[in-house]
Amino acid sequence: MSLLSPEALEAALNAIGQERYHILHPFHDLLHGGKLTKGQIQAWALNRYYYQASIPAKDASLLARLPTPDLRREWRRRLEDHDGDGTHPGGVERWLALTDALGLDRDYVVSLRGLLPATRFAVDAYVRFVREKSLLEAIASSLTEMFSPNIISQRVSGMLRNYDFITPQTLAYFTPRLTQAPQDVAFALNYVKQYADTAEKQEQVLAALRFKCDLLWVQLDALHLAYVSPCLPPPGAFVPAA
Amino acid sequence: MSLLSPEALEAALNAIGQERYHILHPFHDLLHGGKLTKGQIQAWALNRYYYQASIPAKDASLLARLPTPDLRREWRRRLEDHDGDGTHPGGVERWLALTDALGLDRDYVVSLRGLLPATRFAVDAYVRFVREKSLLEAIASSLTEMFSPNIISQRVSGMLRNYDFITPQTLAYFTPRLTQAPQDVAFALNYVKQYADTAEKQEQVLAALRFKCDLLWVQLDALHLAYVSPCLPPPGAFVPAA
Repeated sequence: MSLLSPEALEAALNAIGQERYHILHPFHDLLHGGKLTKGQIQAWALNRYYYQASIPAKDASLLARLPTPDLRREWRRRLEDHDGDGTHPGGVERWLALTDALGLDRDYVVSLRGLLPATRFAVDAYVRFVREKSLLEAIASSLTEMFSPNIISQRVSGMLRNYDFITPQTLAYFTPRLTQAPQDVAFALNYVKQYADTAEKQEQVLAALRFKCDLLWVQLDALHLAYVSPCLPPPGAFVPAA
Repeated sequence: MSLLSPEALEAALNAIGQERYHILHPFHDLLHGGKLTKGQIQAWALNRYYYQASIPAKDASLLARLPTPDLRREWRRRLEDHDGDGTHPGGVERWLALTDALGLDRDYVVSLRGLLPATRFAVDAYVRFVREKSLLEAIASSLTEMFSPNIISQRVSGMLRNYDFITPQTLAYFTPRLTQAPQDVAFALNYVKQYADTAEKQEQVLAALRFKCDLLWVQLDALHLAYVSPCLPPPGAFVPAA
């Protein structure tokens, strides 16, 4: 690969999303299309909780390696978004409001006892990737947020339309994400366009985004296999009530 | 949990295998029962290669933490089994003979380009578990070999009977494992029975074996979803020739 202009790098990042983002996964279509049972949606929310709950760990280890107060303040906002300020609930708490509303016991959700092992492996791989790879790759791996407003709006509008047990209150997690994600992306995309200044670093940035798409995809794969088709929850994993 | 006798600990380990070992996974039944296409078996061999190729990394990081020449010599044998001695091929090389015989390009297999992301996350989780957990937990995680002679003999006899493209030569990987695994188990089982001398350590040992069963299970889950049902290979993963 030869060195791309910043605009061509952004286009290459977008192309990865067009090919690999989990908006293309059949589980997403089933979820927003009203084709899942409440038990299947519980399984989704239960597993996705582990992803949500791990985001602050990933952001804190990235924050710890940022060199200036400016950069750290920018990234600290993400921690505030997810962990709240003690008065306003953050994303983790809002996700638990979703699992509550779906009728899942909160202690059970937080205990992770019913988690699919594949979810754990994928999410842990993300936290470790951010901790161990270069700062540039760690920041680039956040760029799936370039594609998230689209999937969130499909998910929210579809779920509200298609499930009588879903209310705007249930999905309150997603509303602030629609403004937070573009703000996060603006920073991270500028950062990689500025600092990926060799062909090798640009290749690392693209690989980081592919990796991140893969781990979101794997989470839907695991849900699909366990709860949709062929319906094989691994030993010990959550089983929806009949 | 209260402190178990060494015999009761061994029984509890066996019970985990009865409940969670991947001999119970439907993909295993399809594989040895002659129900898979050559392309599906290629996908199995291609993905399992990454597991085989990662075993020496896991064993070396365990070996590095063993305190005495006796213990290290015992564990070094596993490295010899997998990496060979330069004259006799080890397990990794014998696995590549299997992927060769199945018609897969060796460079492609070794490149890992077609690997399922779920395989990568699960195998990497194993290597990291062994590197980061206590020596006792690391050794305990090898104890799935208690159950492997059974699955290997089902797999070998079934595959030889049911597929005309499988010969004893193709499956040469497995023959030495039938004698190596029990020798490995004898050591590791004695070790955990001796050193897991508190209820807490025994619980860690049982959890390590559950973790290992989960990660073997997840690998078959990923193959099942991608290549059997509903047949959804993730973007970029190996696709068998039509």
